[in-house]
Amino acid sequence: MEVYLDNSATTRCSREAAAVMASVLTTDYGNPSSMHRMGMAAENRMRRAAEQIAGTLRCQEKELVFTSGGTESNNLAICGAAEANRRRGRHLITSAVEHPSVLRTMERLSEQGFEVTYLPVNRFGEISVEELKEAVRPDTILVSLMQMNNEIGALCPTEEAASAVKSVNPDTLFHVDAIQSYGKMRIFPGRMGIDLLSVSGHKFHGPKGAGFLYVRDRTKLKPLLCGGGQQRGVRSGTENVPAIAGLGAAAAAAWDGLEDKVGHMFALREHFIETVTEIAGVSVNGRRDRQCAPHIVSVSAEGVRAEVLLHALEERGVYVSAGSACSSNRPAVSATLSAIGLPRTLLDSTVRVSFCADNTREEIDYALGVFAELIPMLQKYKRH
Amino acid sequence: MEVYLDNSATTRCSREAAAVMASVLTTDYGNPSSMHRMGMAAENRMRRAAEQIAGTLRCQEKELVFTSGGTESNNLAICGAAEANRRRGRHLITSAVEHPSVLRTMERLSEQGFEVTYLPVNRFGEISVEELKEAVRPDTILVSLMQMNNEIGALCPTEEAASAVKSVNPDTLFHVDAIQSYGKMRIFPGRMGIDLLSVSGHKFHGPKGAGFLYVRDRTKLKPLLCGGGQQRGVRSGTENVPAIAGLGAAAAAAWDGLEDKVGHMFALREHFIETVTEIAGVSVNGRRDRQCAPHIVSVSAEGVRAEVLLHALEERGVYVSAGSACSSNRPAVSATLSAIGLPRTLLDSTVRVSFCADNTREEIDYALGVFAELIPMLQKYKRH
Repeated sequence: MEVYLDNSATTRCSREAAAVMASVLTTDYGNPSSMHRMGMAAENRMRRAAEQIAGTLRCQEKELVFTSGGTESNNLAICGAAEANRRRGRHLITSAVEHPSVLRTMERLSEQGFEVTYLPVNRFGEISVEELKEAVRPDTILVSLMQMNNEIGALCPTEEAASAVKSVNPDTLFHVDAIQSYGKMRIFPGRMGIDLLSVSGHKFHGPKGAGFLYVRDRTKLKPLLCGGGQQRGVRSGTENVPAIAGLGAAAAAAWDGLEDKVGHMFALREHFIETVTEIAGVSVNGRRDRQCAPHIVSVSAEGVRAEVLLHALEERGVYVSAGSACSSNRPAVSATLSAIGLPRTLLDSTVRVSFCADNTREEIDYALGVFAELIPMLQKYKRH
Repeated sequence: MEVYLDNSATTRCSREAAAVMASVLTTDYGNPSSMHRMGMAAENRMRRAAEQIAGTLRCQEKELVFTSGGTESNNLAICGAAEANRRRGRHLITSAVEHPSVLRTMERLSEQGFEVTYLPVNRFGEISVEELKEAVRPDTILVSLMQMNNEIGALCPTEEAASAVKSVNPDTLFHVDAIQSYGKMRIFPGRMGIDLLSVSGHKFHGPKGAGFLYVRDRTKLKPLLCGGGQQRGVRSGTENVPAIAGLGAAAAAAWDGLEDKVGHMFALREHFIETVTEIAGVSVNGRRDRQCAPHIVSVSAEGVRAEVLLHALEERGVYVSAGSACSSNRPAVSATLSAIGLPRTLLDSTVRVSFCADNTREEIDYALGVFAELIPMLQKYKRH
């Protein structure tokens, strides 16, 4: 049996998305900037995708900027907002457990004269809205927070956080990295006070190389890429029409029965946590209730190196992740696991298991059986 | 009959490229950063593509950086090189007839304290190597030139230009925008003195949303996108594996019988030029011999507005471009057509016809028949 449990790293592209991409690649292959019928057909494919996505967020289509993925969305949101607003202030706020595409961008901005406040997190990986509120200043131009942590699934109360930020400084922009959360919960940026929202296609059965940034109407961003002025000048470059069409199809598919799928993933998660923690020396990081991501479990196995466990699982057809797979600097110590105060001895003994709605109870039982068999065996080899 | 003659705007994705993409999207869909077999399978797909592309350029695989397309490649090459070398100098050289992704990037760098020299072109759209050589200074850090002009097909003698630049200042980096030329001629950056070379997939029957930048070994670039450190830190973000695989397949397909295909396109071009210029008031811009792009013809029709001609052609199933379709600011006056000194009266009366190797003589004859029928008719409506 093969059980893919690395859906936070990437997902299989859905049949709907792959089919629409194939048809755009070879039939409606025009350049949306072309004035003839082939260009119009391509533009219509993009419009349809924008409609599908705008429907999920209840936003306007013109509030969507298509990008090459989550990393570009985060870079564009943060650099674009910081540079467009640097005359108003130089202070930025984020947390200690963000994705490298946020943390590295913040570091680069620090080198350019911005000041960054990093909020700490509790043992579940959660920020305190009270501390966030205290950190906001008159010169704070941007707050950037991840909605669902990609390593342990911690949830950020974005609506409450946005409201706290705006109560202190209504001009501060609120950016949400929704790369793990989009397709796993309902998000309405308009009424939630979110100004910028990053999404990546391949995390919800859409194509790789495609994502978008929601940009609230009238929010100014300095573009990252200069050129032909596509997408109202915010993101130049011939639009990736096939992948954008795939993104729209994947969004529509994800929202079809969303609550049922999320319920199914939570049920798998609860079953997994309950059973895996029966193994001696095994613990789970983050929350066990439903105040977190439905699809992510961070599992520490005392005395077993994560990489060894990963490869042993792989030989039995079970695919998980050591760390977050979002970084190519493998293996590095996880900033998130350090930030939640995980004991040093477990930092290198933690794997991430991540589900999708297509995973079955049977697959999870098979994986649990393999965990239960391998961990005690591997623990025998541990150093004394 | 439908005849697509807008191949410089974008091409139909080849069957080979579309097939490999479909298989990666739904089968080898892993994240190349994942340590398990699914990650390895994805990584192997990328390696195969890198091998295929490196074979066409006779370069090392590690000299390729995959991007989201030509605009990103040009932005990364120019900003990346300028920022990595700003301590050595602030002078950049380009020409007056570059793509907006080069010209706008140069403008942005001017705002940041760089000085840009814009080389003029002759009536064929060609720079003078002698003038280029004279423009190079001790503080010139980068020269950026387009190999094949996207509007009139003018060719830049890149090898000669690189050698002239390096003879004055061996430290000056030489960037080539090969977005129209890759797949239409042999390019060997290693021995041609090219340090950076931009390519876009969808211009040679590869996918949209994918391209690459050749970066000569040991050339330092400041990345545009920060994050997980993929692609040796030069371009963060989960790699667009399906599109990269499609890019490799399209490159291999383009090089299969390259000379024959180029010969076929030149033959179509010569036939087209010969016949279309028999129509009263019709002239062709740029060279008529083979010292230019094999696939681009810029046609001016006195007394006929380009947009009107384009839509009339479209109604007869012939798709061409007014301007270059690389810009969404349509319709704008073409910088290239102005730079070659085209009379004002023809600036707005010029369409671009661009072939691919799949176009047949029969298609061209059909299109020529439509041109011959429409132009005299539309000329009757011209203002007196």
